[in-house]
Amino acid sequence: MPKETMPAMPDTHSLNRLFAPRSIALVGAKDRSIWSVASFDNLKRFGFEGPVHLINPKGGTVHGQQAATSCAAVGEPIDAALLMVPEAALPEAMEDLRAANVGGAVILSAGFAETGEEGAERQRRVAALAREAGIRLIGPNCLGFANYVAKSPLWTTPLRRPMPGPTLAIVSQSGAVASQLEQFAYQQRIAVTHLISTGNEADVTIADAIGYLAQQPEPRSIALFLETIRDPAGFRAAVEAANAAGKPVTVLKVGSSEAAAAAAQTHTGSLVGDDSVFDALCRDLGIARVHSLEDLIVTSDLFARLGRIGGRGMSLIAMSGGMCEIALDQAEKEGVTIPRLAPPTLAALRETLPAFATPSNPLDLTGGAMLAPELIASSIAEVAKDPAIDVIGFVFDAPLKDDGRGFARRFVEHVGQGFSAAGKPCLMMSHTFMPVNGYARELADELGMVYSGGGVDGCLRALGHLTRPAALPRPAARQGASPAPAERPTTERAVLDHLARHGVPVVPGPVVGSAAEAVQAAGEMGYPVVLKIASPDIAHKTEAGGVRLNLQDAEAVAAAHDAIFASVRAYKPDAAIDGVIVSPMRRGGVELFAGTMRDPQWGPVLAIGFGGIFVEVLKDVSQRLLPVSEADVLEMLGELRGAPMLDGFRGAPPVDRTAVAKAIVAIGEAALALGHDLLSLEVNPLLVEGSRVEALDGLTNWDK
Amino acid sequence: MPKETMPAMPDTHSLNRLFAPRSIALVGAKDRSIWSVASFDNLKRFGFEGPVHLINPKGGTVHGQQAATSCAAVGEPIDAALLMVPEAALPEAMEDLRAANVGGAVILSAGFAETGEEGAERQRRVAALAREAGIRLIGPNCLGFANYVAKSPLWTTPLRRPMPGPTLAIVSQSGAVASQLEQFAYQQRIAVTHLISTGNEADVTIADAIGYLAQQPEPRSIALFLETIRDPAGFRAAVEAANAAGKPVTVLKVGSSEAAAAAAQTHTGSLVGDDSVFDALCRDLGIARVHSLEDLIVTSDLFARLGRIGGRGMSLIAMSGGMCEIALDQAEKEGVTIPRLAPPTLAALRETLPAFATPSNPLDLTGGAMLAPELIASSIAEVAKDPAIDVIGFVFDAPLKDDGRGFARRFVEHVGQGFSAAGKPCLMMSHTFMPVNGYARELADELGMVYSGGGVDGCLRALGHLTRPAALPRPAARQGASPAPAERPTTERAVLDHLARHGVPVVPGPVVGSAAEAVQAAGEMGYPVVLKIASPDIAHKTEAGGVRLNLQDAEAVAAAHDAIFASVRAYKPDAAIDGVIVSPMRRGGVELFAGTMRDPQWGPVLAIGFGGIFVEVLKDVSQRLLPVSEADVLEMLGELRGAPMLDGFRGAPPVDRTAVAKAIVAIGEAALALGHDLLSLEVNPLLVEGSRVEALDGLTNWDK
Repeated sequence: MPKETMPAMPDTHSLNRLFAPRSIALVGAKDRSIWSVASFDNLKRFGFEGPVHLINPKGGTVHGQQAATSCAAVGEPIDAALLMVPEAALPEAMEDLRAANVGGAVILSAGFAETGEEGAERQRRVAALAREAGIRLIGPNCLGFANYVAKSPLWTTPLRRPMPGPTLAIVSQSGAVASQLEQFAYQQRIAVTHLISTGNEADVTIADAIGYLAQQPEPRSIALFLETIRDPAGFRAAVEAANAAGKPVTVLKVGSSEAAAAAAQTHTGSLVGDDSVFDALCRDLGIARVHSLEDLIVTSDLFARLGRIGGRGMSLIAMSGGMCEIALDQAEKEGVTIPRLAPPTLAALRETLPAFATPSNPLDLTGGAMLAPELIASSIAEVAKDPAIDVIGFVFDAPLKDDGRGFARRFVEHVGQGFSAAGKPCLMMSHTFMPVNGYARELADELGMVYSGGGVDGCLRALGHLTRPAALPRPAARQGASPAPAERPTTERAVLDHLARHGVPVVPGPVVGSAAEAVQAAGEMGYPVVLKIASPDIAHKTEAGGVRLNLQDAEAVAAAHDAIFASVRAYKPDAAIDGVIVSPMRRGGVELFAGTMRDPQWGPVLAIGFGGIFVEVLKDVSQRLLPVSEADVLEMLGELRGAPMLDGFRGAPPVDRTAVAKAIVAIGEAALALGHDLLSLEVNPLLVEGSRVEALDGLTNWDK
Repeated sequence: MPKETMPAMPDTHSLNRLFAPRSIALVGAKDRSIWSVASFDNLKRFGFEGPVHLINPKGGTVHGQQAATSCAAVGEPIDAALLMVPEAALPEAMEDLRAANVGGAVILSAGFAETGEEGAERQRRVAALAREAGIRLIGPNCLGFANYVAKSPLWTTPLRRPMPGPTLAIVSQSGAVASQLEQFAYQQRIAVTHLISTGNEADVTIADAIGYLAQQPEPRSIALFLETIRDPAGFRAAVEAANAAGKPVTVLKVGSSEAAAAAAQTHTGSLVGDDSVFDALCRDLGIARVHSLEDLIVTSDLFARLGRIGGRGMSLIAMSGGMCEIALDQAEKEGVTIPRLAPPTLAALRETLPAFATPSNPLDLTGGAMLAPELIASSIAEVAKDPAIDVIGFVFDAPLKDDGRGFARRFVEHVGQGFSAAGKPCLMMSHTFMPVNGYARELADELGMVYSGGGVDGCLRALGHLTRPAALPRPAARQGASPAPAERPTTERAVLDHLARHGVPVVPGPVVGSAAEAVQAAGEMGYPVVLKIASPDIAHKTEAGGVRLNLQDAEAVAAAHDAIFASVRAYKPDAAIDGVIVSPMRRGGVELFAGTMRDPQWGPVLAIGFGGIFVEVLKDVSQRLLPVSEADVLEMLGELRGAPMLDGFRGAPPVDRTAVAKAIVAIGEAALALGHDLLSLEVNPLLVEGSRVEALDGLTNWDK
């Protein structure tokens, strides 16, 4: 369940002591331990400048250095310790850390919560020990962390040395996946600021790690690999802090498949892991959600180096018509637009590129450009002036070595000149996926250009995320207190009244107590009308014979009133009956539904869609976390596959989307006002015709 | 328009002389030409064993070798010539080739059909010269070809040297894209048999190239990059020949985006380039259609080395839980299933892996497996025995060098042992995209294992194609002769009668000439009924007042009959009226539509879908080329997003899919019988309720 209170901001001081330690202890250091060897080597390779204390109960020489028998025996301050001891030895080790006043520790060992309830209990005990001693913990069941900026790796497999100018932070719940990401980032010469594996998160969660990174100057973007989110409210707050600090978050989260969802469901016995709600959360928070390890790194790297791009229009330049056509197809798929260039741009390009290229977007420079690279910079300058262009993409492979004649290098220099003068975000991308080596990265850095080896396909997928509008800061759901059970709106009439009080337009529907009153009400609202039983005890009105449609005159209304009473009495003799609802019979229009449900992790979620087959067969639904704004709902309407039905389908007047959005925002507010005990509120149908929007029926479900 | 006759099989002899020449001339050889230098170097690098004649009108020494002034002056047989001369000098060069009895030529120059009508005329003249002289032509506007098997590259940019054991042929209309594919294949150490760029295809088309490759022993799979298909019938025949030879075809074809389709449409003024029809063709021919250059190479390479896989069940093994979860999500997306293992398999794995892994699929061996690699081979042997498993995927990065201690190498050796004993297709795939170098490729070759650096994401996408059932060989559409205009079924009645003659179940609907006849017909079929005007001159029956629905009795029928006559007479006084159609009024059931249309490239295409919003709003349509089998239509029904409507939607009885398929097969045959002048035949609705299938209305459109 979501926390009712906002989480405390991360404890920066204690986390900072752990993540940027001035002194380190390797506890369980041994010459024959591959973890000990790797972590000791990492510290040397990174050039950690503080003291590294090796702790081994037997003392002696380890890794060629005198080992202490305990942290306490060191006699100097220790900011962070890497615990490479078996699970059974942990309580004793924690005692030693407390005695030595160590600031924080990484626990490598597995065998805790991931193994079942007994392990979870052991993990809680260790966490409690640490909390009492004021020690922050990473893990257990992780590989540690590496702070590339502070040159402080506490990481137990071999890491590559830090690269200059790091901008990307990587956080992963899985240590093995973190290792793969580090390797892949290095292969693409993407410089990392922090690599953090959080493991079982006995203390420091993924949310804490994000919150810490949001406050560091170096990371300009954060890549996440997630299996589960243990602190939803903290996660949300941390991502918002990262957004506020201008550090976009990119996520690969497992569990998108039915198999994975089913596994999660079985495991938790709840809706935890509902992937569509996580999708909605990503849209809410402006998280870029990707679906492969490669996309995670390529996308988050481009966020780090290019930042968010203010529009979707791209100028695409390549050296062959074939590549232009491939890129055009892929751009459309990713939501990147390749707009037509304005006439002045085309005219200027015609001057610039007289012989060998036809001015257009995408722009095919042909292989001829290799022989006249001086035209590149001027072409880039021209397209950059075009108001429809927000970003420039140049397809070219950075050379991986000096080819002796310097052809490719000279060419890239001209691209770099063009980029420098463009005044807009520019990216050079390889044709296909290829590694980036030191030579290529240095060349790009020297020219101040952004180059990615992610290939046209991967880079366009990334640009699809970079050019998506950022999420607006939004409040967390502020829910009212749930009314006492007796006060809750549970009948159709009560739910519609509750909705009306919150500004939802609701179909007229007085509850009448006699056939005569029914006839009078019908006469006032005009024929034809509908009669429906109003009873807290009748859930399925049609089944109980409690509904009569399309009544054309007074006679029919009076007869229907009495027939409904008779049917319902026969169906359920002891049902309490409030009366009969009389409403105008609506025909035509478009039937929408709008429902809210309480997600066990993320709280109240809004789902909207078209009624009937759209939701039943096609599952054509758009979701957001509450509260929503009008702009959110307009975006949600646009996401529905059935959206063309809003635009005057089969001769009907186009639907007033703003009126619909206002009504749905109000439905969300009505649901929030009912507090945390509300499981779901459903309006079905929400009938729309032109600018008339009306809730025709409403239903609530409650937790207890 | 499709050719009415089957294309001649490729002229293997003359193509063989061109593609596997025993002697080569480089025409226009010059020390200062980058093309000349590159192509001469390529021949040396490949180790071409025959004579290479350098032709320069001035003679002298070129590339350190005596040049001849013409091919004729060489005085020895020349099988193939690479023409690196300007467009203006081509006629003279062709004359020289004819005089020297050269077998075939590559024309590098641009400036032909791709520049407009004048260039196209020049191209036709060159092609005619060549045809007269019996010279086969590649190009113009291409980079040439390289036959790695025969060591004969006629290619004008630098190529990497051939690798051992080549199995993949690459054909591309764009020379620049071909170069990128060659580079990417080399980066992944995928050995190529042939690299062919066809350019403007004045003579040798993509179809000829495929047909040639289908007859060569070395290529085991063909990768295509296509911009346009100039010889549809030949293309189809060539792909079928490749299929018959066991060489699957993988295609990247541009034009999938709306922008590209619009450009193609403007360009050709026709439906050429309708991407959904090309998709249908790919399904018909069992072509794997991919959407990036990387996927083209990774997929076609795995086709070449693993072949088609007989089922979709995969055992997936990785070294971490995180990777297993990522792979599980991705497998489902690509249609690869990760089935549960059978109890005996699980029991055997429990024996094999006592300590560190939980038997399941996917199987997480954990990092612990690095320390006990001998368990790998036995685990693979156990999963291979499971009947649900068709292919085994092991996630591990091949080492790129000897790490000194041989850890990774030893691990891979155990994987290789497991693979050798499995008796099922096995693939080792890298975690993420990574290059494969000579060390890694040699290690894999030595162990007889298939390794791809395409990463889990790319390899699973490829396996999605490899595990799809192969297309069955199918006849080309055999169309009847179109009837003379006067004999054509054009009215609703005539179209329904035509359909009925081909076995399509059609709603009863006699045409009557009087109110009395209408009443009699209605009485025979039972009330309620529908009356509709039968007239060749009334296209929009409802608009003309020519339709009356839901008539309940004789009186209503008689009145409706007369009212229809009156309305239609008023609407169009000179309309010829055949009478009035009387049909039973149908209610309920599911409305499908089935239509055929003549694609300008591919001939008659069948499209089916649900009626109403499904086709109008959602474009939920499945297409195939005609003729179709019942199995095809069953597959098409399954592709519709609305398919759940067939399974007893809202309490209706489930639809008899076989009955629907039979009816739709018959509709296709009815359309084929109407010959080439039929533009379209539409049955809408095809009403289905349980096992009753009925065409309620039919419409044809004709070319001339």
